Amino acid sequence: MSEAQQNSESSGWEYKGGTLHCNGLSLEELRLRLRQKYGHLGSPVFVYSAGILRENVMKYRDALQPLESRGMLSYSLKANSNPYLITELRDAGVAAATTVSGNEILMALKCGFLPEEIIFNGNGKQSWEVEMAVNRGVLLNIDSVFDAHRLVSISRRLGSRAKVLLRLNPVISVQTHPYLATALANSKFGIEMEQVEEVLKILSSAKAHGNNVSASNLIELRGVHIHIGSAISEVEAYVEVAKAAAKTLRHIQNNGWPEASTINLGGGLCIAEEIPVIGKDICNGRGPESDINENPKESSDSSTATINPPTPKELVAAVLPYLPEEAVLILEPGRSLVATSGVIMTDIIGVKRNGDKEFIVVDAAMTEVIRPALYGAVHQVAYVTCPHEQETAEFDIVGPVCESGDFILQGCQLHPGSSFVIWTAGAYCSSMSSNYNLRPHVVEVMVTSSKDFKVIRSPQTFDDLVKKYKAQYFSVPSPS
Amino acid sequence: MSEAQQNSESSGWEYKGGTLHCNGLSLEELRLRLRQKYGHLGSPVFVYSAGILRENVMKYRDALQPLESRGMLSYSLKANSNPYLITELRDAGVAAATTVSGNEILMALKCGFLPEEIIFNGNGKQSWEVEMAVNRGVLLNIDSVFDAHRLVSISRRLGSRAKVLLRLNPVISVQTHPYLATALANSKFGIEMEQVEEVLKILSSAKAHGNNVSASNLIELRGVHIHIGSAISEVEAYVEVAKAAAKTLRHIQNNGWPEASTINLGGGLCIAEEIPVIGKDICNGRGPESDINENPKESSDSSTATINPPTPKELVAAVLPYLPEEAVLILEPGRSLVATSGVIMTDIIGVKRNGDKEFIVVDAAMTEVIRPALYGAVHQVAYVTCPHEQETAEFDIVGPVCESGDFILQGCQLHPGSSFVIWTAGAYCSSMSSNYNLRPHVVEVMVTSSKDFKVIRSPQTFDDLVKKYKAQYFSVPSPS
Repeated sequence: MSEAQQNSESSGWEYKGGTLHCNGLSLEELRLRLRQKYGHLGSPVFVYSAGILRENVMKYRDALQPLESRGMLSYSLKANSNPYLITELRDAGVAAATTVSGNEILMALKCGFLPEEIIFNGNGKQSWEVEMAVNRGVLLNIDSVFDAHRLVSISRRLGSRAKVLLRLNPVISVQTHPYLATALANSKFGIEMEQVEEVLKILSSAKAHGNNVSASNLIELRGVHIHIGSAISEVEAYVEVAKAAAKTLRHIQNNGWPEASTINLGGGLCIAEEIPVIGKDICNGRGPESDINENPKESSDSSTATINPPTPKELVAAVLPYLPEEAVLILEPGRSLVATSGVIMTDIIGVKRNGDKEFIVVDAAMTEVIRPALYGAVHQVAYVTCPHEQETAEFDIVGPVCESGDFILQGCQLHPGSSFVIWTAGAYCSSMSSNYNLRPHVVEVMVTSSKDFKVIRSPQTFDDLVKKYKAQYFSVPSPS
Repeated sequence: MSEAQQNSESSGWEYKGGTLHCNGLSLEELRLRLRQKYGHLGSPVFVYSAGILRENVMKYRDALQPLESRGMLSYSLKANSNPYLITELRDAGVAAATTVSGNEILMALKCGFLPEEIIFNGNGKQSWEVEMAVNRGVLLNIDSVFDAHRLVSISRRLGSRAKVLLRLNPVISVQTHPYLATALANSKFGIEMEQVEEVLKILSSAKAHGNNVSASNLIELRGVHIHIGSAISEVEAYVEVAKAAAKTLRHIQNNGWPEASTINLGGGLCIAEEIPVIGKDICNGRGPESDINENPKESSDSSTATINPPTPKELVAAVLPYLPEEAVLILEPGRSLVATSGVIMTDIIGVKRNGDKEFIVVDAAMTEVIRPALYGAVHQVAYVTCPHEQETAEFDIVGPVCESGDFILQGCQLHPGSSFVIWTAGAYCSSMSSNYNLRPHVVEVMVTSSKDFKVIRSPQTFDDLVKKYKAQYFSVPSPS
């Protein structure tokens, strides 16, 4: 039993009487209520545990404790941008929000974060986004030479001081899916070390030309930012990152920016793919087949992660010795804060055979969980209610979307019951969802106690889908 | 100059004075109007040519001409489900709509198709979807043994006659991406040949137990359906399909269903990835690198397709000799009807370097065009206005989404101008789009003449995105 589970009996996932419970609430009960309320739109459903969200936040807060006010936990909104989930995280003690678009900045503000508690990252910031960030006092990372030029020009025009970090690409390769590695030599992200001087010159020139604010204050270079990717299982990679960050920070301090003191190490810690469930095993599948998606990296990563994913405490302990004494440390977890808090509960539509394969067709699909098709990611499944029958067979679990890439998990040994949950669906599932095949965005609920849940996103109806289309007619002067 | 271009000077894509025009309308003019109207939400934008849609429909109608009323052209909505685009296709002479979900059936009805002009396919039809289809008289395919049982039970309960086809999986492998092949031995789609007898027995039993309708009319088995996948460049594959379909149709006719006469050969014809443009070359890129996504199949498919994709006429001519004389032939194209009609016009955010790579960061992203990341698909790009400068360099074109999988096209030799169009974006781009990174769904316009265009989808605002979330609180009796 984990530390967190000892603290609170009702938090997390547990089988009672053969039925899976979330924070003490029976998922069968929940299922019934949603079917009563929404009919066929009651399934599939994203179910989040408020208790697990709070536990995950506590693990990071505990880890950052030794740094006192110099440690800052910032949630990466892109993992899951549901405002109720974001607010839950903020209430649990997440201090800041990491955003990657103007709309994510607006969402963070809507969820109660102050502008000075918002970080704006990204390799392609548009002018309106930079303007909004500078105007409101959001901390921006500078990702490239062009990004530096744009920032300086906008700060000058607005006469507003901009707080910035340099997003560095120190070329650190990690064991993860290529789509999830963001600091490779040929990555689109960050400033390569050879260009740091050039960016510093651009920022220095801004100091000399400020108009409304005092010249030396137009750009406030706070420090450096490095994010190496997602699903990282090696703490050693972060040690490399910390060393590179500390070295560049010293360089910046010695070259006209003595006040620079922030090191943002990004996010990306991998998670245990198997959530600890009390009472029953989950149905382990082997993930996508090699002929569908060549993906040894994330798959093997997941397997090792299952054994021993690094904890936030291990991460902080590993990097701390390499940070300057007075440095402010920012961590920007996304998936490791929210993935394990959520599942997709899905009903079985039917069971069929083709060739050597038996398929269980469920009502969830790649529209809700695209990670298996896109990254070869493994999302395990579990019974909502354990079947009485003992016999099992091997099944592929697939969705109803008209595309062979629409699979959930392959090679599962199980007995086809009535419903499943798809694990670790709190991150990069809802936020990457689509209306492909005109499938509606599904209902999302947050379980807050053994008796209470709240619907934090209503299911889309057909009318909602149609409302998006409106015709407007334009005539333009003939170009001839 | 193609046949279609000879028919109408203003249809299609053409450079005039160095600027790309759609149906005679300058894309720079269009760009300006959208920026005036929507500000930063005016880019990126899906631009569809009504003229090219009509030409593509005509090619299929011409091809089916020899069959007279026995040839039926049915558009697969999943390729692009914008109702204005669907209506344009219907007005151009598309006779039917192929749907894969209850919502797609509702959308087809909304666009003016009669129930008897709608086909409902899918490996995971839910009860409410089957009920709606049977109630309204939509033609359903039966995809599996469980699908047959469900259909019979629902028809009995409703006392309604159901018109059905058998979706067969004759095991025909094709040169395409594994996600796009749908008739492999281990595919989730269709009834394997060994199970056809069992399905026929289920349907026959239904004949004997009808209540409100005459017993022999409860199920109307119209024929067979085979769909082998997408991006198919070999007409020979369809010959195999036609032979298998004709053989099973004869078997069905001889076993108690003499009226069965329909052969639905599905869709999937590949397209020329390079749209013919008058006046200038497009900037050919090489597509995703092998270390990002092992995907030799679609890539090489695209390359051969570029040289000589089969025409609808060649397809029909190839299969016709193998069809029974009085058979009704249905074709269900999606991508080959709409892909070449659409582009994404996108502005450049900046140009940067990392390692050996030069990147052009544009404001379109995987949220609008996920096919490169998901299938390794190649979408070529072209200038909106050709640059005066002659020097070019090799660039990767990437989006601003925080993920290395967010690339548009790699290895393009070009001069970075101000804007690009991304080709062949009429299919599986808008319909697969997402709000990842809280990016809004972008504006879509249909160009109808050299002076006129209509906005067929307004851009989503931040308020639109937030509106989707509403909290509702529930309490349930404690389960203990």
